[in-house]
Amino acid sequence: MISSTANSKVKRLAALVQKAKMRREEQLFVVEGVRMFREAPVPWIREVYVSEAFLRKLEGEAGDQKARDIRERLKKCRCEVLADVVFQKVSDTQTPQGVLCVLAMPHYELAEYVDRWMTDSQKAPLLVLLEDLQDPGNLGTILRGGEGGGVDGVIMTRQTVDIFNPKVIRATMGSIYRVPFFVTENMGDTIDFLKKSGVTVYAAHLEGSVDYDQPDYALPTAFLIGNEGGGLRRETAARAGQYIKIPMLGQVESLNAAAAATILMYEAARQRRRKV
Amino acid sequence: MISSTANSKVKRLAALVQKAKMRREEQLFVVEGVRMFREAPVPWIREVYVSEAFLRKLEGEAGDQKARDIRERLKKCRCEVLADVVFQKVSDTQTPQGVLCVLAMPHYELAEYVDRWMTDSQKAPLLVLLEDLQDPGNLGTILRGGEGGGVDGVIMTRQTVDIFNPKVIRATMGSIYRVPFFVTENMGDTIDFLKKSGVTVYAAHLEGSVDYDQPDYALPTAFLIGNEGGGLRRETAARAGQYIKIPMLGQVESLNAAAAATILMYEAARQRRRKV
Repeated sequence: MISSTANSKVKRLAALVQKAKMRREEQLFVVEGVRMFREAPVPWIREVYVSEAFLRKLEGEAGDQKARDIRERLKKCRCEVLADVVFQKVSDTQTPQGVLCVLAMPHYELAEYVDRWMTDSQKAPLLVLLEDLQDPGNLGTILRGGEGGGVDGVIMTRQTVDIFNPKVIRATMGSIYRVPFFVTENMGDTIDFLKKSGVTVYAAHLEGSVDYDQPDYALPTAFLIGNEGGGLRRETAARAGQYIKIPMLGQVESLNAAAAATILMYEAARQRRRKV
Repeated sequence: MISSTANSKVKRLAALVQKAKMRREEQLFVVEGVRMFREAPVPWIREVYVSEAFLRKLEGEAGDQKARDIRERLKKCRCEVLADVVFQKVSDTQTPQGVLCVLAMPHYELAEYVDRWMTDSQKAPLLVLLEDLQDPGNLGTILRGGEGGGVDGVIMTRQTVDIFNPKVIRATMGSIYRVPFFVTENMGDTIDFLKKSGVTVYAAHLEGSVDYDQPDYALPTAFLIGNEGGGLRRETAARAGQYIKIPMLGQVESLNAAAAATILMYEAARQRRRKV
């Protein structure tokens, strides 16, 4: 058991939780909590850390199915016990559940996925493109809602908040394991690539002249969402070519970025259900 | 100018920012930032505090229309200057804009509003009912999106996060000034009251058997949304009587509460636009 916060493993773990640079260098990230541990794809798991209290609680729940699953999973992993105070120190939450996982970052190749999506005769791809989103909760909520709405992939600019940020991961509620995501160095080029591949890219823009529920989203569709403060850059929106707007009443000038994305994703899902 | 954080006015101001109990006792709340100051209904304003830096900046922008508006508004208010360090201490944000307003809490009478809504021949009311929401960002986002979607009122349980919490207020982006809100001691009774008045109350529930886009929301409509962790209480949902579900793909078990509310509010707005 590790009982000192000065332990080198603990220091490294804390750095992985807190520092995007460290995560990038090691190509690792950290997830926390029982749900995130249970749903983690086994091939991604590198190390598992549990608190003393967590282990004690697990032993107390001997007959419970969930506890049995957790024990089974722990057996297959390189697992280390941390004293409760040490765990608290490393954790990103105020009342940690007592289990923490170091995972290998997944890598998805956009060209490969686009190829697969466009040759799938069962389903046209539904994509979300994010320009420079800054709020971790928004990014996480978009992944979670995206999985629910049938989104096949999320593409974001390099300037978007780090998807491996603990707050983003928590807000995804596990969708980070299941929705492929891609970071692009140049959103304009990515938009052109998608258009050439047969995807219509819709820019959610204040100047959009078509109400968002008019286009046919049963076809290959991508929604382009701008940053929380300033919305989409004019050049980026222009590359998409198709503008849509979400009508707003009252004195509201814009919607929260995750709210806008959610409205669009679920309008697409709604149309697609009706076509089946 | 107040230059000490030990000043009694500063201490009281900090307490109003941080403590719900203090706000309740004094029936006051605090908003921050230029936008929140400019959009505040004048009759609500009790005191205004600005930082030295804010005043300096304002003088530098003599010709600017926005700066002129701010100066006009400041003249009409009881305004006090705080040293920058003092302002920083009181502020709830990391990089404060330098203006802070103490406002009187508004009070809306539900029975009065229901009466008004139900006799309005132009528009059927659209309401959102919130059971014990805990996340300030969610509540704020629902008010902001609600204004955009044409929501006439938000009713929440006493156990819901305090609407005057600075994080809620910030997330409303000013909608807190324009969307009437009501706190109920008993959501079940409120649901009965609304139903008796002619409003159909739809519970967004995992067991809902009707897809959310099936009912006619052009009629008087209320959406009942549950808490982030556990969803709606079974008894509360039962009081509503009408269940709706948002179909979800993948392994998603539930949506973020604000995302669910947004989908429902904008489906209602969409239907109402089509009927005009």
